[in-house]
Amino acid sequence: MENKFRYIEGGICAAQGFKASGTYCGIKKPANDDPGVKHKNDICLYVSDVECNTAAVYTQNKVKGAPIIVTKANLEKSGGKSIAVIANSKNANTCNADGVEKAQKMCELVAKELGVESEKVIVASTGVIGQVLPIEPIERAVPILKKGLCYNKHLEAATAIMTTDTVKKEYAVEFKIGDTLCKIGGMAKGSGMIHPNMATTLNFITTDCAVSSDMLQKALSEIVKVTYNCLSIDGDTSTNDMVVLSANGLAFNDEICDCSKDFDTFKAALYEVMANLTRMLAKDGEGASKLLECICSGAKDKETAITVAKSVICSNLFKCAMFGEDANWGRVLCAIGYADAEFDIDRVDVDLKSDKGTVEVCRNGSGIEFSEEKAAEVLSSDEIYILVNLNGGSESATAWGCDLTYDYVKINGDYRT
Amino acid sequence: MENKFRYIEGGICAAQGFKASGTYCGIKKPANDDPGVKHKNDICLYVSDVECNTAAVYTQNKVKGAPIIVTKANLEKSGGKSIAVIANSKNANTCNADGVEKAQKMCELVAKELGVESEKVIVASTGVIGQVLPIEPIERAVPILKKGLCYNKHLEAATAIMTTDTVKKEYAVEFKIGDTLCKIGGMAKGSGMIHPNMATTLNFITTDCAVSSDMLQKALSEIVKVTYNCLSIDGDTSTNDMVVLSANGLAFNDEICDCSKDFDTFKAALYEVMANLTRMLAKDGEGASKLLECICSGAKDKETAITVAKSVICSNLFKCAMFGEDANWGRVLCAIGYADAEFDIDRVDVDLKSDKGTVEVCRNGSGIEFSEEKAAEVLSSDEIYILVNLNGGSESATAWGCDLTYDYVKINGDYRT
Repeated sequence: MENKFRYIEGGICAAQGFKASGTYCGIKKPANDDPGVKHKNDICLYVSDVECNTAAVYTQNKVKGAPIIVTKANLEKSGGKSIAVIANSKNANTCNADGVEKAQKMCELVAKELGVESEKVIVASTGVIGQVLPIEPIERAVPILKKGLCYNKHLEAATAIMTTDTVKKEYAVEFKIGDTLCKIGGMAKGSGMIHPNMATTLNFITTDCAVSSDMLQKALSEIVKVTYNCLSIDGDTSTNDMVVLSANGLAFNDEICDCSKDFDTFKAALYEVMANLTRMLAKDGEGASKLLECICSGAKDKETAITVAKSVICSNLFKCAMFGEDANWGRVLCAIGYADAEFDIDRVDVDLKSDKGTVEVCRNGSGIEFSEEKAAEVLSSDEIYILVNLNGGSESATAWGCDLTYDYVKINGDYRT
Repeated sequence: MENKFRYIEGGICAAQGFKASGTYCGIKKPANDDPGVKHKNDICLYVSDVECNTAAVYTQNKVKGAPIIVTKANLEKSGGKSIAVIANSKNANTCNADGVEKAQKMCELVAKELGVESEKVIVASTGVIGQVLPIEPIERAVPILKKGLCYNKHLEAATAIMTTDTVKKEYAVEFKIGDTLCKIGGMAKGSGMIHPNMATTLNFITTDCAVSSDMLQKALSEIVKVTYNCLSIDGDTSTNDMVVLSANGLAFNDEICDCSKDFDTFKAALYEVMANLTRMLAKDGEGASKLLECICSGAKDKETAITVAKSVICSNLFKCAMFGEDANWGRVLCAIGYADAEFDIDRVDVDLKSDKGTVEVCRNGSGIEFSEEKAAEVLSSDEIYILVNLNGGSESATAWGCDLTYDYVKINGDYRT
């Protein structure tokens, strides 16, 4: 099967029939309250011209943000159909006694404004946990968001969901189902509290490809496992993780209803979008100066490869070593060693690689001599690949993370204020 | 049962019949090679006057330091008997092709010097992973160590096992078995790569209490579970974790051979020593400015209490918040929420406490109003207690950790050089 996807602009508006808008409503009063200052967007809305089949995955944290509870209930009530998504940053609406009530209210406000049923509105929030969400700014914002809806305002939305993110994250591709050109695009936010389990904080994907509800959920669940769930910034699984995939069918391809070649094509396109967003999230991890990508090959099964690759990119000690550009590969071996997986540690090979070259540091579980000078050169890059070969099978997997820096500590030493 | 233990000085030499010594042999050449400079000890030896029943627990990391492999084999061969322990810092002797050979050589050198069987010598190493251990400095050091052995040189040994540790860690108590006065004491090292699973890096405990081999191992395994295994500095389980407990019986109490009241007394004394060493390890975590102690109560079983308490003290985000003295209790809830345990999140209460007072931050899983000023005052202390009540049972447990600081990143950005 040829996986030919062309990157395109447009984020969540790349697919046909999706309009978006974003604005600043003042959920959390900024330090600089001067009305002359232009503040970063903190709320967004996107809407499909027609009803969408909608798949979603949510955090496995026992503490669930109120928007998670409300969105899940809405999709159950509507039979997996949705039309609009509203999302805010700066306040997670989590661990609040009135959280569910407020999240429902957000859906009702949008439903009334658009003239649709409230259960066809999806709601998401991200930001500080445990602070009461003020509803008045949102009441004022919804009509403004509605008025601002446009087929090209994906950027307004992508910036509205940012918290400690330093760059917006969007990705979209086009691909063919039979002779029909389809598009799939998405936006994501997230920088800290990232160690997804089934999903990660606020990822929104839209497509005009016609896909049945069942197959849409199947594709999302499968691809989440090898993309977002292979990402870790700090080991903390958020309370508000959510990935929503909306398919409005406006490409008018023959609907994908089973495990056909078309389904494989769709899944490969979805992987392309989600893997790229995952990579962007890792690279923009809180305080990060380097992207870390661990590729584990030679595993007896996929699960083993995922477990080992994730263990490496989760190691605080290794993350610090990468910040210091120190080829302390012993920490890679240590992290491989405590991974809960089956393999022969005495067959493990490790290389460190970047655009500056490759340095072999470990063969058969033992260190080999290497040039520290060459290693320093390789590690001076801002994208580092850790190649782990278990030499015990043919499966492989990738995990994404970032280094642990002074700035991570700084950002999180005083996040609320 | 009255748990009356009197703290005493003496570390591993507190119990009768244990001699120790330590010296600098130059395993890793220091930057300052001036022979006039006095270097920190890097190797130590301790010896019992008579053979000891010996219990040990080891790292569960698949990558095992060569000393772990050799010590385990020796104790199997000797039927759990030992006489001497040799330990070095600065080099972990792990992931080296000739590691086992070198570790055996260390035992042989000691055995020859003392005139005992090589399998009655325990060996331990800590330091950098994956660098070849030079044996020549150790060959020169062993006769010096033998000559230096003394019943009061516990400090020489306790300082020889330090790596990034900033303070030595020793603790000892005396207690009574029947009318017989017994003593138990220990020393520990460890500052980074600490997230023990069955043991933690280099903890040595000696006692003159007579305890059978089986009961000694039973006591150690039970107490490790609620002390060292409830400690985490950075989530990285070391390759060289080892706890060794040697009992030489020189107190001449009636040997403890079953689950009697005396066994409970011995276990309680062992807990006293190991819990205090654990607390010292946490407080001296790499870069730490604050000790964090999470006490989880109201759990349906011990396992649940341990899992929840550990999850809180392992959260990077919460650790950063404590460094910043920011009462971001939402991160405590988040960490409780992703703990792999059963409880009702809507019944959880959280308080933050120190010698400056207590602030209630969460009731029934939701935030409650509190004075930020008071919270800042409480968090300004260097020992912070996080009190989590699950309100779902009567079991409790404690976990120990520390904050995540700029200095942790600094220390680990360039550890090898």
